[in-house]
Amino acid sequence: MSSHIVVFLPDGACVEVESGRSILDAANAAGIAIDSACGGQGACGKCKVVVVLGRVEGRGDDKLSKEDLAQGMVLACQASVEDDLVVEVPLESQRGELQILMDASRAGPSEGAARETSIPLAERRRLAISPPEREPEKGDVERVAECLEEGAGESFSEFSVGLEALQALPSLGRRENWELEALVGDFGGRGEVFGLESSRGRKSYGVAVDVGTTTVVVHLIEIETAGYLDACASLNDQVARGEDVISRIIWTQEHADGLVQLRDEVRATINRCVGELAEGRGIGPEEIIAAACVGNTVMTHLLLGIDPAAIRREPYVPAVRSVPTLRGGDVGLDIHAGAPVYLAPCVSSYVGGDVTAGVLAAGVGESPRLTLFIDMGTNGEMVIGNRDWLMCCSCSAGPAFEGSGVEYGMYATVGAMERVSYDPATDQVEYVTIGEAKPRGICGSGLVDALASLLRTGVIDRAGRINLDFESRRVRVRNERPEFVLVWGEEVGRADDISLGEDGIQNLIRSKSAVYAGAETLLDSLGLEASGVERILVAGAFGSYLDAESAVLIGLLPDVPLDRIRFVGNTAVAGARLALLGREARLGMEELARRMTNFELSVVPGYMDRYVSGLFLPHTDLRLFPSVAEKLELRA
Amino acid sequence: MSSHIVVFLPDGACVEVESGRSILDAANAAGIAIDSACGGQGACGKCKVVVVLGRVEGRGDDKLSKEDLAQGMVLACQASVEDDLVVEVPLESQRGELQILMDASRAGPSEGAARETSIPLAERRRLAISPPEREPEKGDVERVAECLEEGAGESFSEFSVGLEALQALPSLGRRENWELEALVGDFGGRGEVFGLESSRGRKSYGVAVDVGTTTVVVHLIEIETAGYLDACASLNDQVARGEDVISRIIWTQEHADGLVQLRDEVRATINRCVGELAEGRGIGPEEIIAAACVGNTVMTHLLLGIDPAAIRREPYVPAVRSVPTLRGGDVGLDIHAGAPVYLAPCVSSYVGGDVTAGVLAAGVGESPRLTLFIDMGTNGEMVIGNRDWLMCCSCSAGPAFEGSGVEYGMYATVGAMERVSYDPATDQVEYVTIGEAKPRGICGSGLVDALASLLRTGVIDRAGRINLDFESRRVRVRNERPEFVLVWGEEVGRADDISLGEDGIQNLIRSKSAVYAGAETLLDSLGLEASGVERILVAGAFGSYLDAESAVLIGLLPDVPLDRIRFVGNTAVAGARLALLGREARLGMEELARRMTNFELSVVPGYMDRYVSGLFLPHTDLRLFPSVAEKLELRA
Repeated sequence: MSSHIVVFLPDGACVEVESGRSILDAANAAGIAIDSACGGQGACGKCKVVVVLGRVEGRGDDKLSKEDLAQGMVLACQASVEDDLVVEVPLESQRGELQILMDASRAGPSEGAARETSIPLAERRRLAISPPEREPEKGDVERVAECLEEGAGESFSEFSVGLEALQALPSLGRRENWELEALVGDFGGRGEVFGLESSRGRKSYGVAVDVGTTTVVVHLIEIETAGYLDACASLNDQVARGEDVISRIIWTQEHADGLVQLRDEVRATINRCVGELAEGRGIGPEEIIAAACVGNTVMTHLLLGIDPAAIRREPYVPAVRSVPTLRGGDVGLDIHAGAPVYLAPCVSSYVGGDVTAGVLAAGVGESPRLTLFIDMGTNGEMVIGNRDWLMCCSCSAGPAFEGSGVEYGMYATVGAMERVSYDPATDQVEYVTIGEAKPRGICGSGLVDALASLLRTGVIDRAGRINLDFESRRVRVRNERPEFVLVWGEEVGRADDISLGEDGIQNLIRSKSAVYAGAETLLDSLGLEASGVERILVAGAFGSYLDAESAVLIGLLPDVPLDRIRFVGNTAVAGARLALLGREARLGMEELARRMTNFELSVVPGYMDRYVSGLFLPHTDLRLFPSVAEKLELRA
Repeated sequence: MSSHIVVFLPDGACVEVESGRSILDAANAAGIAIDSACGGQGACGKCKVVVVLGRVEGRGDDKLSKEDLAQGMVLACQASVEDDLVVEVPLESQRGELQILMDASRAGPSEGAARETSIPLAERRRLAISPPEREPEKGDVERVAECLEEGAGESFSEFSVGLEALQALPSLGRRENWELEALVGDFGGRGEVFGLESSRGRKSYGVAVDVGTTTVVVHLIEIETAGYLDACASLNDQVARGEDVISRIIWTQEHADGLVQLRDEVRATINRCVGELAEGRGIGPEEIIAAACVGNTVMTHLLLGIDPAAIRREPYVPAVRSVPTLRGGDVGLDIHAGAPVYLAPCVSSYVGGDVTAGVLAAGVGESPRLTLFIDMGTNGEMVIGNRDWLMCCSCSAGPAFEGSGVEYGMYATVGAMERVSYDPATDQVEYVTIGEAKPRGICGSGLVDALASLLRTGVIDRAGRINLDFESRRVRVRNERPEFVLVWGEEVGRADDISLGEDGIQNLIRSKSAVYAGAETLLDSLGLEASGVERILVAGAFGSYLDAESAVLIGLLPDVPLDRIRFVGNTAVAGARLALLGREARLGMEELARRMTNFELSVVPGYMDRYVSGLFLPHTDLRLFPSVAEKLELRA
């Protein structure tokens, strides 16, 4: 029985299921909640999903509109998995509150089907080694190699047994009657046994790591089942050395041992997350047998201790774009020292492996539709194109949408307000927090909502200034700075109120303008208009959703029909998971990194002007945002 | 201009010369003294050498007899190098006293021709990397890879740049204007840059290591020129844990951490030699960029810290026969931590990489002539065959011929008596010492000579007992043990006399009998007789020569015409050098290890009987030694 991997967007959950199972089954196994009132009978038509990548059979056509079909929609209960799939779950098909990726409530599935289609970065293979015989005189290791060749010969161009495994082999093999488990890593197509253990049916774990400038996110995955277990996010310890990649580079140059220090800080951050995840599951570091890391180009350099100085000097060339598969010990990760560590390949100095991974996970390079992919992080990266061509660029957005530089801003983790809406009639703010917890702050998607809501209601003007004449006790001045109170502390049992002030609003406006100007410049340089873009996919760690209408209203995204805009979540970590679980994904990333043509925004004269014009809500030039102008005019 | 490597036997010196140069030129460059009275005019006919392997042009036929031609002899001054060669210098062509391999007097040649025909285990490649301005879309490492592909693309199936080199690249490249030197290792056909340095025209060094049970020999080689620089020999620190491989295995089993301790001891021994050689040349450990190690199967296991216990248990299977190319750091050698460490592949539990290396260096597997190859070490290994088939076996000879277990016995190093002859008429012992130094003891070849001489003159009887009635003041009893004085201490300014006693003689007889019985059993099992063997090549660290007549007289070698017997020196270390310098040799060894069929002496019932019969000089059964019987009868 063959099996396939199914990845669900926006949250990147992966699961392996047997061929022929429905997407709904896969979603249930992956812990993804899809609305399905009829219980999977194909009757209610609520479980619509978009097949971004891969082949299915059956669609449930009678419940789908022409428009649905044009978008690649299928009914999750009717479509059967016949291929490795990337499936997007639209907001309207998500059931109830979604947990964010950091939440541990999505337990691992246990589809134990034999993997036939994918070669994970590392896996545990059970070996029934032939016992030693005098004739023909084969050494222990030759019999292991033979056994591996039989089991997985076609998977690898060659096999070798590493020194540590060699050292374990003779005693362990005899003690265990030659029933062993080999830890086999995929080192660029070559298989290496980097560990040998007694055959106890142990589970194997891997980590998918999104090495962000501001935040590091680590997912713990059970490799055999492709099952998501847990996630952990942490502020990158490097943040104390500067907010963005440029200031980090400067820091390495201005401090002796600065490079080593930043390397050690990002490693420590990752290791803290890995340690927390491992401890939570009661597993030891050596049970984590693979790591797939994605990061922007500077983070990739810093993680490996490679000097990134040239990235900010003419002609802005990185030291490395693609790195051979390394080992846990080399990279200083607290996992099995011999475990393969894959790093997603970078495109250029400012378009890194996180983008390559994201583009792969979002299926941009496979789609016939002209797609604009925007990954909002501390750097905002954009990719435009389709299966025939791809172009990419990067702009320095700053970490405002990750919650940094905004008082009460926070990363999208438990307690973050991810949806916000203000009703002036009742003077109430409605909000939803991640994990339905007591509000602790406000994350990216909440900030987008809040800005949009305050703009729409006239609490702030188009320059982002708070209207102190607005009739609401939420509008006030604190420490001589105007602010708007989102949550009264006394209502939720906290000492202070959660508010949004003008300084934070200005940071958000600068961030959104940098991204918008980048997209505009990129499109313009290609002779394209925003209206010609068939899909806009927004990735990033905003939370579990991003409201498209709000994003357009504040001028973060171009003014296109809202159904063209989709939030696809943290595609970087989703790509890292794919790389962890399948060689196709790893090869796919290498190919994508080669295919993407880099476009340098900073050398285009118009970019700065566009950025300055964008420092308004939604924009200085309202002709670019006709639907918003209409809405705001209605209010006026 | 293409160039070739020439290896000279018996001492294993290597040199690289341009195509078309004479073998005599090559010998001079390698520091090998060949007799040549006419100065290379082809007139004196004294520089006869045997081309064991490879193709030459011109032979000097008019100075060669039919017999010479049949043996593959050529005149060194007339034959030009057209191929990688192995050349044997017969004793009669050696000029004056030979230095032994440990002697540093053979300075390195400096034939700086570009190497076209061989891919050393590691080498330094000068890179002129295109500066980043020219190709801004490429990272530093991509431009390095491109540059390597151009220079050596055909040499390797793929190239990668290791982490340490990646870390050095960006700063070093810019500081040095992209003129760098890459340390490129051959890891089983894949090229890896394991170091990057500024382009200073530095030399690159490698070590060839013979990891013997009793003695470790290390040669320091300059890689670019294939030039021999120096050698160092040291008693293996493991000797304190037992004399032979079996007692070493037992030691690892009977002591907690015994395996780690033996591993560390052999590493320490190698490192002491490497350190001495490096210090002598004023080079740092990181300048040694490759190591080729050959050792018997147990030594190979112990060096790598792999448990060898199964070797002495039914069915006598080693853990490893062939090991992937490792790194200096993995193996704990005091060389560049990323440097490739090649280990010659083993055939079976008792026929190791030293034999594979030796068979390669001696050209046994390429020859049409039926050859018996005997490597005398603490274990005596034998290979019989030709280019069509090869069979091998091993017997436990003990270290007597390495000087161990014989009072005044010593390893073949400076001050060892390597030729000995006793004249009863004058009661004088004539001898030659290595390095023409004051005698310190007696090495293998001297012991063979001494036994033969004492037997021939009647000082000892056929059981090895000293005839106390023999009329010589050299025959005496000391500490209740009969002995024969070889050197009077007062004559050479030492406090004690150098003598050979009955205990030592008994050990030598046991050793020679083990070897002879092994050869006899091997031949018999193949239905062959000694008289059918066309060549007997004797390898080992006896000294710089071994007298064939003496060896037959004492029954160490079968009674065949003496011109069939050749002493080929330490072929193990010669093979290690070849592996260090050329991929052909490394691949050749892998092939040899597969080709050689292992023959287990211990399971043949007749072996023990043959061994016991051999505990006489030359043998209990004189019919096996007709020429010796004749000589001894003449005396009687």
